[in-house]
Amino acid sequence: MSPTTKHLSTDALQRWPRLITLEGGEGAGKSTVLGALRAVLEDTGDEVVSSREPGGTPLAEQIRGLLLDTHHEPPTTEAELLLVFAARAQHVRETLLPALRRGAWVISDRFTDASYAYQGAARGGDPAFIAELERRVVGIVPALTLLLDVPVAVGLQRARGRGATDRIESEREDFFERVRSGYLARAEAEPQRFRVIDASQPPEAVAAQAVAHLRVLIEASV
Amino acid sequence: MSPTTKHLSTDALQRWPRLITLEGGEGAGKSTVLGALRAVLEDTGDEVVSSREPGGTPLAEQIRGLLLDTHHEPPTTEAELLLVFAARAQHVRETLLPALRRGAWVISDRFTDASYAYQGAARGGDPAFIAELERRVVGIVPALTLLLDVPVAVGLQRARGRGATDRIESEREDFFERVRSGYLARAEAEPQRFRVIDASQPPEAVAAQAVAHLRVLIEASV
Repeated sequence: MSPTTKHLSTDALQRWPRLITLEGGEGAGKSTVLGALRAVLEDTGDEVVSSREPGGTPLAEQIRGLLLDTHHEPPTTEAELLLVFAARAQHVRETLLPALRRGAWVISDRFTDASYAYQGAARGGDPAFIAELERRVVGIVPALTLLLDVPVAVGLQRARGRGATDRIESEREDFFERVRSGYLARAEAEPQRFRVIDASQPPEAVAAQAVAHLRVLIEASV
Repeated sequence: MSPTTKHLSTDALQRWPRLITLEGGEGAGKSTVLGALRAVLEDTGDEVVSSREPGGTPLAEQIRGLLLDTHHEPPTTEAELLLVFAARAQHVRETLLPALRRGAWVISDRFTDASYAYQGAARGGDPAFIAELERRVVGIVPALTLLLDVPVAVGLQRARGRGATDRIESEREDFFERVRSGYLARAEAEPQRFRVIDASQPPEAVAAQAVAHLRVLIEASV
């Protein structure tokens, strides 16, 4: 497998035709969709790697722990942004790129778009700085990003029904409204890569739509 | 206390007249010097805060743990750089700036120059990216930086005599040669801020020279 370049400039991000990302706020139902996508990809007979962010390597999972736990003072906006990108740099070099280079299908539960939504739109981080970090330490973009969009109240009710909440899940509703707007703005700016799915539907309907978008990508790659 | 700006450009770093940093490779004797500087500053009757990097807040100390321990895969060059700056962003906002704004004297055992030496010169990180991170998430520079310079073989013998070595201490000698060159290049580029001390001398001689440089700064600040 080789990447295709998205832009012609020398600092282009590489688009990998077998990299798929799943995005959405809390309680959007990403885990259910991930399972459905994996099943379809496994039917192709090719290797399938699924992973999550922040995380995806032993070190990156430890960074995730620092981001989510509440046993120390909360990170500043800048520290949170750099911790997320440190974990992502590690995830790309150690997990995603090796799998993509082997020809595997790769699904990541959250990726760079999450930083534009959470650390950018919701926390006020400068999107130009986020773009610089993306270019410098990430360097790759997915071929398909499925955004599971759900009204904030619905998503939070689902997420909080799961029990104990981490540092991010215990933010206020206006934080998640900004996350949602940030994601929708990303999707609008890159309609070729994004597919937005109404995730307030029943889980089977959401999964069926996600699978339909995935099948288009699989057919295009044959 | 108010900072003085180093440059007139809008992205200037703020120079704080009471911020002092101590730099040097492994086994340079920074701890002994730190004690001597603290004693002199405490004699002024002003508040004195001393701290270290990576570290200086509960979260930043946990990031330090991730950087130094060997229980997970080593960070990539990019992840190491971002982890160090995440810890530094936290240290500046939570510890250094509040102390400087109260009018305290602040000594940091390592600061941004260490990233130019370790993550830049020694690991090959792009100095332009390091400068961008410095401008974006650090924003301040010390009035005085004491560089304790010692031949690599001497420093390593001292450091390894202390027992168990962490991930950085177990690097090869050529790594530390690049650290040393990186530090000396920084000192040469900013002679007004840096004072280079020959740290192969006996500890009392090194401490006496460090104290002499500090007294010049104290007198200038009166």
